[in-house]
Amino acid sequence: MIPAGGRTLAETSEEELLATIFATLPTRNEVMIGVGDDTALLRVPTGSVLVTTDSMVLGRDWLDAWSSGHEVGHKVVVQNLADIAAMGGTSTGVVVSLIAGRDTTIEWCRALNEGIADACRAENVAVLGGDLSSAPDGVRMVSITALGELRDVPAVRRDGARVGDVVAVSDLLGRSDAGLRLLQRGDVDHAPELVDFHRRPVARLAAGPQAARAGATSMMDVSDGLVRDGRRIATASGVRLDLDSALLRPLVNHLIALGEDAWSCVLTGGEEHTLLATFPRGKVPDGWYPIGEVVEGGDVTLDGRAQQGGGWDHFAG
Amino acid sequence: MIPAGGRTLAETSEEELLATIFATLPTRNEVMIGVGDDTALLRVPTGSVLVTTDSMVLGRDWLDAWSSGHEVGHKVVVQNLADIAAMGGTSTGVVVSLIAGRDTTIEWCRALNEGIADACRAENVAVLGGDLSSAPDGVRMVSITALGELRDVPAVRRDGARVGDVVAVSDLLGRSDAGLRLLQRGDVDHAPELVDFHRRPVARLAAGPQAARAGATSMMDVSDGLVRDGRRIATASGVRLDLDSALLRPLVNHLIALGEDAWSCVLTGGEEHTLLATFPRGKVPDGWYPIGEVVEGGDVTLDGRAQQGGGWDHFAG
Repeated sequence: MIPAGGRTLAETSEEELLATIFATLPTRNEVMIGVGDDTALLRVPTGSVLVTTDSMVLGRDWLDAWSSGHEVGHKVVVQNLADIAAMGGTSTGVVVSLIAGRDTTIEWCRALNEGIADACRAENVAVLGGDLSSAPDGVRMVSITALGELRDVPAVRRDGARVGDVVAVSDLLGRSDAGLRLLQRGDVDHAPELVDFHRRPVARLAAGPQAARAGATSMMDVSDGLVRDGRRIATASGVRLDLDSALLRPLVNHLIALGEDAWSCVLTGGEEHTLLATFPRGKVPDGWYPIGEVVEGGDVTLDGRAQQGGGWDHFAG
Repeated sequence: MIPAGGRTLAETSEEELLATIFATLPTRNEVMIGVGDDTALLRVPTGSVLVTTDSMVLGRDWLDAWSSGHEVGHKVVVQNLADIAAMGGTSTGVVVSLIAGRDTTIEWCRALNEGIADACRAENVAVLGGDLSSAPDGVRMVSITALGELRDVPAVRRDGARVGDVVAVSDLLGRSDAGLRLLQRGDVDHAPELVDFHRRPVARLAAGPQAARAGATSMMDVSDGLVRDGRRIATASGVRLDLDSALLRPLVNHLIALGEDAWSCVLTGGEEHTLLATFPRGKVPDGWYPIGEVVEGGDVTLDGRAQQGGGWDHFAG
């Protein structure tokens, strides 16, 4: 939360702010040149680099009343690292772009930076550099680009699912959406762990390389909802993903606090960063939940029935 | 410029927009996986990767009345590629993050994308991926992260300038600032080439690797102004850069259209992306302009006299 009366960016210089917020950033052996020059230089022993980018925008992706700067920093890192994991990769470094109105407090920037640094440190990821730009008052956004590598595993794309494969997820579903709905209802005490998950999602990133080693034929992270992201795999692979309600029920039961919305959270809840993958029968790794199978056709179905809509569109009315 | 009555992002879906704007993007042999999956995968034959990020924000870094979407796309790419060149590197790929209000027209997004694609294509740089987020109406910003490599040259940092070195720049100075001042005066016909340069800066990027090969001891690109960026080299290297007004005069004369503001443009004009470097005496490469020398002390001086301020601060009042 923004403390009342804190000093704002209007009362500091860019260089002072950079010196403050870039003071204690995680690094790693592969970083040959880190923060503070025109560019960073990262050693890439595997000979190839994975790269992805994702952003969070105040008022769209978070509200200051509900999420602290530290939580925003944590979340935007996790979103990016989950995309690297979803290819089978392991993240190595990030660069950060903060675009903020001059009414933003220095305290908030410092908290953001600590959230980014802590989330990176937890996964042995270096913060390689950053950029700071001013924006109109009230506007604030953070973009991260993450780099990663494939450690003796193949890249797992979206287009390799085959008829007969098992559809599986690496973790529970719908927790972030459930937490958001509880916040919207003002009902944060009912299931505080779901509200916490919305604010500070935890992604089981090691499941990405694990799936690649196990022979996953396709993989994504669930950032826009199971049905919507599943449809992307279905379209890219030219198959249908048929979800099984009996297999999904334990995941739904986990959201009992949501009552009749629990199914909707599991099927359409975004920002979850659980991995969704397809595996040859018998190859689903330990810790993954089978939730359906790959069949002929297109789209995503539940017990054979079509699912409408099903997820987050940035520009939908 | 935004055409009146164009369809806006509110009238499209994210996937339709992505399909439209990511239709024709430049690639290169090293791109193993490009746009359209969770991450891209880029081969890195040199075993290390340079990475940098820079953004442009509507109302701060451009006005729609003065710059088209194509020009904004061109400029944000050049800004990033210049940072890679300023380490001695050659750019290989970029990822793009567009954060835009739903009032943004699809036409503007398409023009932005073409500007990005054209600027990348001209330098054999691949567009590796992108991210699209919505923002409040009236808000629009583009962040780019560029990747690059060092082709048989060392990285040139900011901290290697030594007493006795020659200070030199790879190209003219102050053109972007001069063009901006002419736009602000409503005097665009007086020196249209300067206005063009402000809208669509041209950076001699090959000068970066050239300088590294020639043994440059420090290098930056002039993005915030000669004095301000020079001070960064001076501080990092523990030296003073003493600029010589006689050597700078031909660069000032080039801005004769600016009258008495010409000196100020040359000394403090940002967004120029000319490279500023120091070289051992006798090692200044062809095409570079010597403009001073490295002496004992700190800061940047002109004919031995201190220079106040001298450049762009994102958060200065």
